[in-house]
Amino acid sequence: MTRTLITGGLVVTAAEETEADVLIEDEKVVALALRGSDEAQAWARSGARTIDATGHYVVPGGVDPHTHMEMPFGGTYASDTFETGTRAAAWGGTTTIVDFAIQRPGESVRAGVETWMGKADGNCAVDYSFHSILSDVNESSLKEMDTLVDEGITSFKLFMAYPGVFYSDDGQILRAMQRGASNGALTMMHAENGIAIDVLVEQALAEGRTDPRYHGEVRKALLESEATHRAIQLARVAGSPLYVVHVSAQEAVEELARARGKGLNVFGETCPQYLFLDVDNLAEPDFGGAKYVCSTPLRPKEHQEHLWRALRTNDLSVVSTDHCPFCFTGQKDLGKGDFSKIPNGMPGVENRMDLLHQAVVEGRINRRRWIEIACATPSRMFGLYPKKGTIAPGADADLVVYDPSARHTISAETHHMNVDYSAYEGIGVTGKARTVLSRGRVVIDDDTYLGAAGHGRFVPRSTCQYLV
Amino acid sequence: MTRTLITGGLVVTAAEETEADVLIEDEKVVALALRGSDEAQAWARSGARTIDATGHYVVPGGVDPHTHMEMPFGGTYASDTFETGTRAAAWGGTTTIVDFAIQRPGESVRAGVETWMGKADGNCAVDYSFHSILSDVNESSLKEMDTLVDEGITSFKLFMAYPGVFYSDDGQILRAMQRGASNGALTMMHAENGIAIDVLVEQALAEGRTDPRYHGEVRKALLESEATHRAIQLARVAGSPLYVVHVSAQEAVEELARARGKGLNVFGETCPQYLFLDVDNLAEPDFGGAKYVCSTPLRPKEHQEHLWRALRTNDLSVVSTDHCPFCFTGQKDLGKGDFSKIPNGMPGVENRMDLLHQAVVEGRINRRRWIEIACATPSRMFGLYPKKGTIAPGADADLVVYDPSARHTISAETHHMNVDYSAYEGIGVTGKARTVLSRGRVVIDDDTYLGAAGHGRFVPRSTCQYLV
Amino acid sequence: MTRTLITGGLVVTAAEETEADVLIEDEKVVALALRGSDEAQAWARSGARTIDATGHYVVPGGVDPHTHMEMPFGGTYASDTFETGTRAAAWGGTTTIVDFAIQRPGESVRAGVETWMGKADGNCAVDYSFHSILSDVNESSLKEMDTLVDEGITSFKLFMAYPGVFYSDDGQILRAMQRGASNGALTMMHAENGIAIDVLVEQALAEGRTDPRYHGEVRKALLESEATHRAIQLARVAGSPLYVVHVSAQEAVEELARARGKGLNVFGETCPQYLFLDVDNLAEPDFGGAKYVCSTPLRPKEHQEHLWRALRTNDLSVVSTDHCPFCFTGQKDLGKGDFSKIPNGMPGVENRMDLLHQAVVEGRINRRRWIEIACATPSRMFGLYPKKGTIAPGADADLVVYDPSARHTISAETHHMNVDYSAYEGIGVTGKARTVLSRGRVVIDDDTYLGAAGHGRFVPRSTCQYLV
Amino acid sequence: MTRTLITGGLVVTAAEETEADVLIEDEKVVALALRGSDEAQAWARSGARTIDATGHYVVPGGVDPHTHMEMPFGGTYASDTFETGTRAAAWGGTTTIVDFAIQRPGESVRAGVETWMGKADGNCAVDYSFHSILSDVNESSLKEMDTLVDEGITSFKLFMAYPGVFYSDDGQILRAMQRGASNGALTMMHAENGIAIDVLVEQALAEGRTDPRYHGEVRKALLESEATHRAIQLARVAGSPLYVVHVSAQEAVEELARARGKGLNVFGETCPQYLFLDVDNLAEPDFGGAKYVCSTPLRPKEHQEHLWRALRTNDLSVVSTDHCPFCFTGQKDLGKGDFSKIPNGMPGVENRMDLLHQAVVEGRINRRRWIEIACATPSRMFGLYPKKGTIAPGADADLVVYDPSARHTISAETHHMNVDYSAYEGIGVTGKARTVLSRGRVVIDDDTYLGAAGHGRFVPRSTCQYLV
Repeated sequence: MTRTLITGGLVVTAAEETEADVLIEDEKVVALALRGSDEAQAWARSGARTIDATGHYVVPGGVDPHTHMEMPFGGTYASDTFETGTRAAAWGGTTTIVDFAIQRPGESVRAGVETWMGKADGNCAVDYSFHSILSDVNESSLKEMDTLVDEGITSFKLFMAYPGVFYSDDGQILRAMQRGASNGALTMMHAENGIAIDVLVEQALAEGRTDPRYHGEVRKALLESEATHRAIQLARVAGSPLYVVHVSAQEAVEELARARGKGLNVFGETCPQYLFLDVDNLAEPDFGGAKYVCSTPLRPKEHQEHLWRALRTNDLSVVSTDHCPFCFTGQKDLGKGDFSKIPNGMPGVENRMDLLHQAVVEGRINRRRWIEIACATPSRMFGLYPKKGTIAPGADADLVVYDPSARHTISAETHHMNVDYSAYEGIGVTGKARTVLSRGRVVIDDDTYLGAAGHGRFVPRSTCQYLV
Repeated sequence: MTRTLITGGLVVTAAEETEADVLIEDEKVVALALRGSDEAQAWARSGARTIDATGHYVVPGGVDPHTHMEMPFGGTYASDTFETGTRAAAWGGTTTIVDFAIQRPGESVRAGVETWMGKADGNCAVDYSFHSILSDVNESSLKEMDTLVDEGITSFKLFMAYPGVFYSDDGQILRAMQRGASNGALTMMHAENGIAIDVLVEQALAEGRTDPRYHGEVRKALLESEATHRAIQLARVAGSPLYVVHVSAQEAVEELARARGKGLNVFGETCPQYLFLDVDNLAEPDFGGAKYVCSTPLRPKEHQEHLWRALRTNDLSVVSTDHCPFCFTGQKDLGKGDFSKIPNGMPGVENRMDLLHQAVVEGRINRRRWIEIACATPSRMFGLYPKKGTIAPGADADLVVYDPSARHTISAETHHMNVDYSAYEGIGVTGKARTVLSRGRVVIDDDTYLGAAGHGRFVPRSTCQYLV
Repeated sequence: MTRTLITGGLVVTAAEETEADVLIEDEKVVALALRGSDEAQAWARSGARTIDATGHYVVPGGVDPHTHMEMPFGGTYASDTFETGTRAAAWGGTTTIVDFAIQRPGESVRAGVETWMGKADGNCAVDYSFHSILSDVNESSLKEMDTLVDEGITSFKLFMAYPGVFYSDDGQILRAMQRGASNGALTMMHAENGIAIDVLVEQALAEGRTDPRYHGEVRKALLESEATHRAIQLARVAGSPLYVVHVSAQEAVEELARARGKGLNVFGETCPQYLFLDVDNLAEPDFGGAKYVCSTPLRPKEHQEHLWRALRTNDLSVVSTDHCPFCFTGQKDLGKGDFSKIPNGMPGVENRMDLLHQAVVEGRINRRRWIEIACATPSRMFGLYPKKGTIAPGADADLVVYDPSARHTISAETHHMNVDYSAYEGIGVTGKARTVLSRGRVVIDDDTYLGAAGHGRFVPRSTCQYLV
Repeated sequence: MTRTLITGGLVVTAAEETEADVLIEDEKVVALALRGSDEAQAWARSGARTIDATGHYVVPGGVDPHTHMEMPFGGTYASDTFETGTRAAAWGGTTTIVDFAIQRPGESVRAGVETWMGKADGNCAVDYSFHSILSDVNESSLKEMDTLVDEGITSFKLFMAYPGVFYSDDGQILRAMQRGASNGALTMMHAENGIAIDVLVEQALAEGRTDPRYHGEVRKALLESEATHRAIQLARVAGSPLYVVHVSAQEAVEELARARGKGLNVFGETCPQYLFLDVDNLAEPDFGGAKYVCSTPLRPKEHQEHLWRALRTNDLSVVSTDHCPFCFTGQKDLGKGDFSKIPNGMPGVENRMDLLHQAVVEGRINRRRWIEIACATPSRMFGLYPKKGTIAPGADADLVVYDPSARHTISAETHHMNVDYSAYEGIGVTGKARTVLSRGRVVIDDDTYLGAAGHGRFVPRSTCQYLV
């Protein structure tokens, strides 16, 4: 048995800030003791490996519940493999990702899960789990849901966008939600009215508006809020919970707030790109806007304050990355002359914890809320709690010794994601993961990667823990 | 030239209540004079035909902007022809109807208009006009819209319900609305999420829930409000006005109110069945509920107060009938054992003016609002003003001498609609049209029909007059 | 008997736009006939005095339900007497004013009414009526309300501002509203939290913030909306209607909209100064801001769009002037060095109709809405209908032949109000009253005043006609 | 040093549910270790006093932030002294109370604090702290606030009710809030429009409506929501946080929700009486309703579901008791024949934890939310965290071993509060505190009181920890 002791830090969880030392046995946290107490002193004398966290925070490893490693899109693949992507996650203080296993139309849901299991197996630096994307809701796939829930795939994503690819119609959505209402699965929704958007895309292209910035113009905020409202009503009819992914428009936030004010099991997630970037990025010259093409799209800057406020009021509960990187050269440029052909997605799995800590520095959220939206809530939302997302006896020893005063600049020069640009290039932030443990193993320490592909394991999940 | 004088009545319009005599020359109102004034006395001496309205109201003839004469539905036809239906309208004090000409999928819009023109031509007791139903929105039908607007067909109805029949998807809806934004057409919407409803219908039937009352249960209020919200957002994206037909659910009213509070060109219509009947009717025994099967469906009684309030706050602007009668015997009974096969629709064109006057008697609305929602607003909404819907110099002499104290009981025994039951059987009301003029001709007087098929003429319409 | 005929104009009322000729006998409109009809032609041949309105609008004379002629304030008096003020009203196309008779604390309500009756009697160019201001709500004044309602003083204004002067506390307000609920009186409210405002005034002055612009800063929008909300709730408790005067803040509009959405008898009025001026005026140099000191105060410019929208949605129903002029020299300058000593009020009775027509020209409202908010609704709201505010057989012949294309510039150089500055100095408008009739008498024609002091008569009023 | 070990229980805090053993040294929790871990086993062998919590919850002691021991009201005193009241609190699992020290008009704030300090000193079974009630806001008392905040009295209560007693006008409220905005104090508000209520009281009594149930009728829900809205707006003007006490009306909840949706620092508290009792209790015969007279009053039963939902959505954040007992005989009966003379208040400090656990049993809230609203949030809200309200290294050892399956019936026969009736007489609940520790000392164990007057100590507080 390996005993590891983290001493001298301020333990910050979603609920508490404690001057405590943390004792780890093998892969788990087993005890916390008041710093300087007899107990803590005894631990220090016990010969445990000691990590000094003086002047640092000790926080739960980040849980990023929305990544797309190696995802096929438009004839290419997201440039991070599970190996490079989870390693980059570790560098950024994230120790669990939940990726999406895609059912292909005409195939079984399980086939998708197995494919993605295969991609991840033996390659991951940190723990991982899977949601399932349903691209073909039918009697057979509905039945598969029940079994998959039992096996720890407890959340299923549907698309109101991308007709002909991932799109489900309202009847399919209703059926899947009804099934979730009975088997406990959480329905995740990409909420954009893709049918209407495709009309606007066609019109834009026909009129020669082909630059990346038109991607932002045609995917209108009203078509995000419309779909959000629709998904909520379908969930009410089905009696099922709903989790709306990558919310970017204030109008969509308003719909979530209305539903949550009624006490409904409706939850919203946003991503750093919507909090830190805006349509001006999409308008960068020389096709530079392509770097920022993702769906839902970046919005005008004034939406940001609404997102931040919603993160404070809990109308938005989670910040994930929707990490889905495509290189500018060779991938994003597939859409030169036709924005609709630009692969949708952006890198970010490495940057999330730091960008959100920057928000703490700037006074937008407090420290505990930082951990709540980045670690604890994603964990509870997707049934990873109490293993992940907190520091408590019995939890997995996924921990980060975080230096709250380390200043650095985000750049593709220095990042570890397998992509040739950074969406946040040049942004200076204060705060950085110094030491990262995954199930008790130090995987990052002082700018050195000490982990190994295959250390990360699949984590089956229980159902959503927020339902009222 | 025929001069007709209506004397002694209280002239009630949407805006005024005036003790005035009304002078008609041929088909038009040409002057109003204060009762007892020199002018009025001179008219009385002039030899004009005089209709004594003492103790009565003189009101504009009703404008019913939503009827379906001879409409094909599920293999049968609405039982009122243009002849029987417009005659019944006249009996009830309604002197203009706007019916729906249906484009069949694969055919041109114009073909539908011509078919319906043919059905009405030479048969109508009172004036009529047409909306067009678009069942097949495509490049060609969009182009036809422009021409039809020029010819006086200025409103186009789309369906979010009835997949496979009238249904348009959100892309088709958006395109039609965009066209309306440019050519001035008003988009009318049947707002129910038909895709989701069909799932619930299938499930209900599979579970043996086949009685008419399940028609009301599966067509959920939330699926009406969802579609209402969606239609509003699509209209905002298109920059077009929107008129939502047969609103029945308080949740849908709430969406209209939200939109109208923002100052949008969004309008709502309800019908007497939603104001006076409820789900208890749908549950009448011995398949009796079939009489009340229409879509949107009747709602639980508590919705009624919300509809009445919305009629007072103008969140609902119009009361039409959605008159679409099917005989209980031989038509409604097509759906015995399967509520989804019951022809959708109810009779009512003859009852609307009296039922709404009953609401005046009961203090729900005032007299001017009665005329506003039943005459003036439908007329303005659909470009019939100032010909129809008011009493003013230059207006068509479509007038009703209304006896506000005549009590009678609504019954299939006594009504003039060609249908074997009354939806309002046994309801007692106070108030009745005594004399009805259509373009100066007395068509009803003292319980006698004096009109003639073919007197009624097609009225081309200008565009909606409410846009801000 | 004098017969006057107005020919060739477009008769515009709140409800209709008619190409009609208008026949007046003595003081009343007796008939309207379609232009060119036999009837109209007969009138033209009858020897009546004819006013040619070709190319002009024929509209009802304006009804300004909120003026303060000769009002005492802070040791001085509003500079317009009933003679100068009603003459200026006539110049601007306003033919009825409702002024405020003030009860002084310790005196009877009637004493105030009699004082104001005395001021007006024999001096007015156009008709007038009175609201009563209750400054001392007690058992005795509550009893007086009943009698005054019977005598045609049917509306009573209370102040939540001006502690120690007009202020009523919430108990007094509740009692007065309860009385109104029983005797039909309409409660008018100056809705600002004067108790809180006085704290901010004191603090501002203590800190040396004495310039007029601080008047706008201390009278915060939130303290207007607070009081508006409070007045609404007190009215709900009392079961009485409520009319909120001079609404200026979007937050207050929001409270009105909430209440009206519930179907409550709650009404709001705004004034041209809030629609056309803003806090930049209050910050004009050299004490120039004093010209714009009134309460509620001018707001930041962004509030204007909310007021205009509310005028379209009918969340605001009336535009009055709150005409209460004080000369810049000798009156406004009482507040040099202490904004709290600046007499509160602004001139405007002459400008209202033109400024609102300018809004028609600019597309903010349509023609009928112009007449509705400036003539018809004030008339109905305060029980002057159908005498005032419309053109119909039986109505008083208060009419304006309005030239919709006359361009002119508002200026103190040319206005007829007895005040040494114009709040709208230099603003160009299109539209002007060419000929103004008051009860059949031409009082303004082609830039000449033809009226006489004493022509205007007191008009007793019935109760509010909008209650549902 | 005394070491105490609590083993075998499920540790439930607002954030976590952990199978952990808790180690206490003297008065503080020093460590938690995973049950069965080497660490926990070592503790068990260390000779520490061991409390077996197998099958029980280990929860933080309750924090009741709203009690009134020995409070003077209408010539009598609340019947619980600090001795009897805090002992009863301990029986019920509450280990901290925050009582109210009353400033009397004309006296200093400090004088009130000292008086209450004197009452509590040496008498309390558990820890206590004080809010201050400001009855006389003036320059001098505002200055005192600053010093008191430094001394750990960080919250100040104002009354919009009780004119002539505790009432502050809006100017005083604004000034106190401004002071709080600068010195960090939290303003607590009794939000009822007392000025208006007193009018209704007077009218009710004059009409002979003297029974206790009229207490509930005159203190109208709209007058609670009005005051709530007003307090919020004043807080916005002042830039200060606001905590509204004893919220009972759904309309008031709606105002809180509106404010919180905007991200404002506005918080609401309700009490068990509003969650479990209703106006039917106030109507109990033979003056029995007097037992339930408190302000805000009990509401119709339909309000309850809104309160419960708000507790789930966090629009209400805290459940306190507003414990203020008066004996039915000899105290409540002062109001026979005049409900306004009934001392306002109800007992409950002993019942809160159990009633809220009953809500867990019934599925209204989950376990963690139980602890959050009853322990953690009151602690954070009033600056007692991390000493009180949680179980973590460094926290005070205020702990409850709670038996979740013990069934008992609430009754005056068995309760320990010094009052001759129970408001919850006969209500059966599941769940009961078995062992209660206050700062490490067992004060209740197996139905035996083991504490001592004087063990409880005054706890100075930091400022509110929820501000964003």
